Amino acid sequence: MTELYGGIEAGGTKFVCAIGSGPEDIRAETRFPTTTPEETMGRGINFFKTQQGEFGPLKAVGIAAFGPVDLNPSSTTFGHITATPKPGWSWADLLGTISRGLETPVSLDTDVNVAAYGEGRWGAAQGLENFIYLTIGTGIGGGAMVNGKLVHGLVHPEMGHMLLRHDRERDPFPGSCPFHGDCFEGLANGPAIQKRWGQRGDQLPSDHPAWELEAHYLALGLVNLICTLSPQRIIMGGGVMEQKQLFPMLRREVLTLLAGYVQHADILEGIEQYIVPPGLGPRSGILGAIALARYT
Amino acid sequence: MTELYGGIEAGGTKFVCAIGSGPEDIRAETRFPTTTPEETMGRGINFFKTQQGEFGPLKAVGIAAFGPVDLNPSSTTFGHITATPKPGWSWADLLGTISRGLETPVSLDTDVNVAAYGEGRWGAAQGLENFIYLTIGTGIGGGAMVNGKLVHGLVHPEMGHMLLRHDRERDPFPGSCPFHGDCFEGLANGPAIQKRWGQRGDQLPSDHPAWELEAHYLALGLVNLICTLSPQRIIMGGGVMEQKQLFPMLRREVLTLLAGYVQHADILEGIEQYIVPPGLGPRSGILGAIALARYT
Repeated sequence: MTELYGGIEAGGTKFVCAIGSGPEDIRAETRFPTTTPEETMGRGINFFKTQQGEFGPLKAVGIAAFGPVDLNPSSTTFGHITATPKPGWSWADLLGTISRGLETPVSLDTDVNVAAYGEGRWGAAQGLENFIYLTIGTGIGGGAMVNGKLVHGLVHPEMGHMLLRHDRERDPFPGSCPFHGDCFEGLANGPAIQKRWGQRGDQLPSDHPAWELEAHYLALGLVNLICTLSPQRIIMGGGVMEQKQLFPMLRREVLTLLAGYVQHADILEGIEQYIVPPGLGPRSGILGAIALARYT
Repeated sequence: MTELYGGIEAGGTKFVCAIGSGPEDIRAETRFPTTTPEETMGRGINFFKTQQGEFGPLKAVGIAAFGPVDLNPSSTTFGHITATPKPGWSWADLLGTISRGLETPVSLDTDVNVAAYGEGRWGAAQGLENFIYLTIGTGIGGGAMVNGKLVHGLVHPEMGHMLLRHDRERDPFPGSCPFHGDCFEGLANGPAIQKRWGQRGDQLPSDHPAWELEAHYLALGLVNLICTLSPQRIIMGGGVMEQKQLFPMLRREVLTLLAGYVQHADILEGIEQYIVPPGLGPRSGILGAIALARYT
């Protein structure tokens, strides 16, 4: 009998819960809005308990958590959401509540780290030990795999808050980040596109100048990630990357900005396979959570 | 009897060779200019052979190599210098020549990775699994330890070529990098200071405005590294960092630019221990080479 795992994509807006063993074997799935911690985690626990009646006990559960989240195993608040503007969620014990509620081992990581993990197991980064998963949406965040292990470090990476070159003559928009103004996220997230051009990105035509500028900022971010982590591949997901015309512009701009400095055929000749959309499409997070439960 | 190791700091300008077992036990050391590959590697091999007559056979040798160098173990040119403007050195087989010449196991990594390794074993990053060693001199380069292992990735990191925010009104200097103009290295290396201010950095007074600007660019680089790698500590070496007045300015500027976003006491309250000079001073490279020989 196939062993089954639970996955929770615990987002700031909605939770997705699923049971299965991999991308081709999802037995049940549900989604519901993120309200209070008690109600939201309660619904998740109830879903798994009900399904366990049908499928038998889960071997383990994986959680892709919105942040900030405490990932230090030796901390007393390990697995808690930390200080967040989201009402009621500051210091909510995500890991503890789920693992006590289901009496099963629970693994937890940041949403982007889990998505990276899923892409490494079953998606666009299979067989690679060094790659980045980046999501460009309401926020910008990244998860990195280095030498086959996810990067955590002191806290966890905050790739969306790198400070990029901003040509204010070409683009006077001051940026949308409440902390840094024109950081990577402040210049290139979905809300920045909307505020800069007065229209939601998905309502702009695909030949609108917004996309050339967006590709430029994304390329500036990617160049810095390439110079820092030397990834074997970069996977670009999230709502903004649904604009498929961004990919060729972005690849071209990365080559232009690198100016031939990083001498490797995978970049110089294989950029189409170097900067790619997620192999799991919008399901990197939830499938990554199942992969995390299964393989860690 | 203590086992002895050889270390080679193979720089583009000079080679340093040493024999010993650690920082407190260096038995012999020599340095000579980098000329042709044959002559330079020959001098290194002769030094070790002569010393072995006195001290007995070396257990292993470690090399801190100038770059670009091929670090892919499955490549046919593993351990070779690759395409370099340095006359005669393109495709020189550093690893093979030394290991054949001495008939001993040889480990090799980039100069900055080896310096990081040395600082992790015996210097300012002992006990840490995630940290960065950055050198600010004629060039800017960085080595990163993540989850206790050095980062290599597709090629190796090129942290000095990140593209930073450049306010051309405040600083019209176009940058010194032949590839990118005003990348991190182009704005903040030693030659950039000299070209911008018309005087070598070590001849400028310590209250010269050059240093405030230099600290600003260094901080921009560090913020991006913190956002990408989330290191537990950053070690700043190299000739430019001999200007000790840079450290307090740099720490202050990093806090200002992060704007409270990365919530960790090690940064918010402990910045003096977070951004530090090398524990091994200017000897991170040569001692790192001995550490590499000893522990890998």
